Amino acid sequence: MQTSDVDSRLLLGPGPSPVSERVLRALAHPTVGHLDPQFLELMDDVGTRLRRVFGTDNRLTFPISATGSAGMEASLANVIEPGDEVLVGVNGVFGGRLAEMARRMGARVATVEAEWGRIVPEEAVIEAVRARPGTRVVALVHAETSTGVLQPLGDVGRFLRETPTLLVVDAVTSLGGVPVDVDATGIDVCYSGTQKCLGVPPGLAPITFSEKALRRIEGRSAPCQSWYLDVGLIAGYLGQERRYHHTAPINMLYALHEGLRIVDEEGLEARYARHARVGRALQSALIDRGFTLFAQEGHRLPQLTAALLPDGLEEGPLRNELLHRFGIEIGGGLGPAKGKLWRVGLMGAGATDASVDTLLAAVDQLLTAAVRA
Amino acid sequence: MQTSDVDSRLLLGPGPSPVSERVLRALAHPTVGHLDPQFLELMDDVGTRLRRVFGTDNRLTFPISATGSAGMEASLANVIEPGDEVLVGVNGVFGGRLAEMARRMGARVATVEAEWGRIVPEEAVIEAVRARPGTRVVALVHAETSTGVLQPLGDVGRFLRETPTLLVVDAVTSLGGVPVDVDATGIDVCYSGTQKCLGVPPGLAPITFSEKALRRIEGRSAPCQSWYLDVGLIAGYLGQERRYHHTAPINMLYALHEGLRIVDEEGLEARYARHARVGRALQSALIDRGFTLFAQEGHRLPQLTAALLPDGLEEGPLRNELLHRFGIEIGGGLGPAKGKLWRVGLMGAGATDASVDTLLAAVDQLLTAAVRA
Repeated sequence: MQTSDVDSRLLLGPGPSPVSERVLRALAHPTVGHLDPQFLELMDDVGTRLRRVFGTDNRLTFPISATGSAGMEASLANVIEPGDEVLVGVNGVFGGRLAEMARRMGARVATVEAEWGRIVPEEAVIEAVRARPGTRVVALVHAETSTGVLQPLGDVGRFLRETPTLLVVDAVTSLGGVPVDVDATGIDVCYSGTQKCLGVPPGLAPITFSEKALRRIEGRSAPCQSWYLDVGLIAGYLGQERRYHHTAPINMLYALHEGLRIVDEEGLEARYARHARVGRALQSALIDRGFTLFAQEGHRLPQLTAALLPDGLEEGPLRNELLHRFGIEIGGGLGPAKGKLWRVGLMGAGATDASVDTLLAAVDQLLTAAVRA
Repeated sequence: MQTSDVDSRLLLGPGPSPVSERVLRALAHPTVGHLDPQFLELMDDVGTRLRRVFGTDNRLTFPISATGSAGMEASLANVIEPGDEVLVGVNGVFGGRLAEMARRMGARVATVEAEWGRIVPEEAVIEAVRARPGTRVVALVHAETSTGVLQPLGDVGRFLRETPTLLVVDAVTSLGGVPVDVDATGIDVCYSGTQKCLGVPPGLAPITFSEKALRRIEGRSAPCQSWYLDVGLIAGYLGQERRYHHTAPINMLYALHEGLRIVDEEGLEARYARHARVGRALQSALIDRGFTLFAQEGHRLPQLTAALLPDGLEEGPLRNELLHRFGIEIGGGLGPAKGKLWRVGLMGAGATDASVDTLLAAVDQLLTAAVRA
């Protein structure tokens, strides 16, 4: 068994998304050192480009050297201290994960729950903070990858801006696919992953911290429990001193840099429009075929569609056939949605009309065969 | 600025080491999903090959999805609980980092210190454990990258095997370059990095846990503070259930798999012999040129040589010239050794006679010019 034996797939699941030739070529560029001036220049440019896609002027904007879930952990670990009151919106797997991580860090966690597939009502979040004015952090998932819900954030952001409470937002599946607008929304810590709408392999977690978040971090009574994710230490490498912290994952950073160049060449507005257009095309085609969209109307992510299958169809075997007969990867449900739905990602380089057409042609063959059987 | 503008370097610093064409090609293989059966098969094979190079039968042997320092953090975070007594051998940067991480996790940390450049005497470690029989974990650095010291472990391993105390070992710079022998030595948790003697870009941290370590983890009174590094959760993905934890860094794992195939093709004994031979050649050539080896005689790593420069020579400007005039990267000193010494790595694909010749030719030019000036 070797890597060259691994067959290519059309990646239309919840991530990783297809990686373009340009990004793969950058990934394979000869490795240099993490203190090489050439590499440091590239890192600075990664920061500049990340600020653009996050919609922020935050100076501390960089990729964590691990995957999106480590971005989640870094965002909480830096701003939470044991005993802190933390409020988490939970309407899917990733909200649940935020709450679980915060608990492990010793926070006193309260949740605002919503049914899977529905948004967390912003007024419920604001009310919960009013009821618990000591709340230090509110954490919400912008794009809930387990359900396909796009969470509104504007009212919560406006409200928290006038309070000492920090707003932490999971933008793993949203960044580069729909606007994130960190500064305009009033987000204090925002993290993402590379393998969704940025079109880069998994392995890095872009993250950004507001000045309000940095003041919280500077005022900590004890250092961050995680040395690896301590942004105070990482900032020493990113800043003028270039102090060695850990060895950066050089080649993954090449790939991210190239992915961000592609984002900039396309332009953010054009990129969002492309994701919106193909996502809507897929969603209406699935409805035509008897699927039921899982996410609440008006709050559907274009780049990640969760859909319940037409009555009488089993999702697992059909999904398996998509992979093995057609070479198309899509995702199944997680947690309580396991076995019930499909999750289709049209993200980054995968967000094309051709992806939709290829998928629908395969689905139509499978559905025809299933009805006949 | 783009990745293709980054000039190649001959990487003879403390890491990353040169990455072969084969590994770069594997890295750029089209990305597939982390639950794709093809990828899971590759992951299983990575585990098998890692067991071989670690010298272990430990079933829980896998790469952490982050760099070597995250391997250090994972090794401690899983086995330490707040209040635990932990003993760390400190004779360089990485021992100091182990102690710092353990403290952040709430451990009561004692250290056995040795002068930089000298080994931590095994009898001092054993004595310290005898004096503090409640010691839950002893942590030692096998290959101290900041000084070039190869730490003996056999006596400590034999002693701790008969006690409840766990032995955690940093093999970041040793794995694949000198024998690690996890099982024979009695190491309970051992971690490494990919960018040293394995010849793979930075980004993954191979790690292995003994049954004794797993029993300690099962008996924890509270979950691991880090969700991302919790091996109990990661084992659910590696095991039969293939339970989603986080999205594995697919392409980095392609590269690691290819790097491990190269290790197996060469054979471990041949690989160790190659590192030993070229390391010794470099060290004696440096002595001939008036350098002083920093590490204690009899305990020198062949793959990482720390050397004080001949009197009157400033390390920084010469090292800079090596990089900018000759395209050769070597490292400077860290901490108290900053500005005093060079660190030269002959690791993985960089451990060749040609590397030594190229470096010495450049050094000779620089020294001649410096003497003339």
